[in-house]
Amino acid sequence: MRVAVLGTGMVGQAIAGRFDELGHDVRVGTRDPAATMSRTEPDQLGNPPFPAWHERHAGIRLDTYADAAAAAELVVNATPGSVSLDVLEAAGAEHLDGKVLIDISNPLVFTPDGPPTLFVDNTDSLGEGIQRTFPGARVVKTLNTVNAELMAHPATLADGGHSIFVCGNDASAKAQVTNILTSFGHTDVIDLGDITSARGVEMYLPVWLRLMGALGTARFNVKVIR
Amino acid sequence: MRVAVLGTGMVGQAIAGRFDELGHDVRVGTRDPAATMSRTEPDQLGNPPFPAWHERHAGIRLDTYADAAAAAELVVNATPGSVSLDVLEAAGAEHLDGKVLIDISNPLVFTPDGPPTLFVDNTDSLGEGIQRTFPGARVVKTLNTVNAELMAHPATLADGGHSIFVCGNDASAKAQVTNILTSFGHTDVIDLGDITSARGVEMYLPVWLRLMGALGTARFNVKVIR
Repeated sequence: MRVAVLGTGMVGQAIAGRFDELGHDVRVGTRDPAATMSRTEPDQLGNPPFPAWHERHAGIRLDTYADAAAAAELVVNATPGSVSLDVLEAAGAEHLDGKVLIDISNPLVFTPDGPPTLFVDNTDSLGEGIQRTFPGARVVKTLNTVNAELMAHPATLADGGHSIFVCGNDASAKAQVTNILTSFGHTDVIDLGDITSARGVEMYLPVWLRLMGALGTARFNVKVIR
Repeated sequence: MRVAVLGTGMVGQAIAGRFDELGHDVRVGTRDPAATMSRTEPDQLGNPPFPAWHERHAGIRLDTYADAAAAAELVVNATPGSVSLDVLEAAGAEHLDGKVLIDISNPLVFTPDGPPTLFVDNTDSLGEGIQRTFPGARVVKTLNTVNAELMAHPATLADGGHSIFVCGNDASAKAQVTNILTSFGHTDVIDLGDITSARGVEMYLPVWLRLMGALGTARFNVKVIR
């Protein structure tokens, strides 16, 4: 499948790398490919610059958001929530129409003191905002509840014995995304309902962040025991 | 231990019954004991009225909020979030001072159409509000992430192989509550930090509600895999 992954950070790299590993035709979208390829410094979190990752994934083409999305059958939003709507606007509504759009973003606001908060209130979600803004896209919210490594390689933790969620209005889009998640190694994909259920998975972030603090690692996930 | 459980609904009954089973001296607090004991109709959720439960737990005394709290060493807030501050006011700050106060409440607003939302925004929580309003109480937020049955008898699901959280400012209060939770059968009690971490466990409710819908049961919980 031809996949566009919008975003060059940890999440974009993990997802693009995983689709590539599985034999898909992957393009990564960025605002300005030349600028992205000229980066030599680690990002704010100390991760290596994109060109260092790209050297090891030379088969993956770096494009503008619009060119990557235009060429794709499936688009992944792997950008920070604070810029997601702008990035998707740059990708172009006409390049999202009718396509499955996997939305991984979280609506986090980072504050100088104290933990991050959310920039949507609890009667809305970023997933819904994206679906409203791009009504032709078939938005499926997923993967935002784990760190980048576990998104792409869930089997590295407890042989994949933990749960992941899908939210969206389009049943066939959710079925397609569930198949993709299964191919990644996710063993328990739970359909939470329409896109309004994105509120639940986005509002899960505060407890995820506290768990990361309590456990001293981001390598964890929840398994829904029933 | 002398325990006051404030609230006569499903949560109050489950917690009071469990403390009683384990040999503690339990009083249940209510606004007007005579009115509570005169109920003959099921509640809004179709649960039997309090007297039907009390017949099977005759050793548990029903008291006013204030009398129950005054007599107790440990107080449990098992009331709906919408009335919790009023109930604790009725119990009396002087009867909470210096005591461990287990807060199980959720700040849910029920709406005629659509799922419940929260009445605190994401930079606050009801747990913090209770701690601010009753600074002499040693508030520990816990158990609000599972249904009443699993709060009290976690071993009925997967032999207790799932996780529960404690949040609070007082380390010795959290240690004492952890011991109580362990005596109930909880096998994985995770300390999320100070009372501000109550935001995380309260904001977890929307995904819990969606999971209940997706799974068709409230008999589930998450296990934190790490």
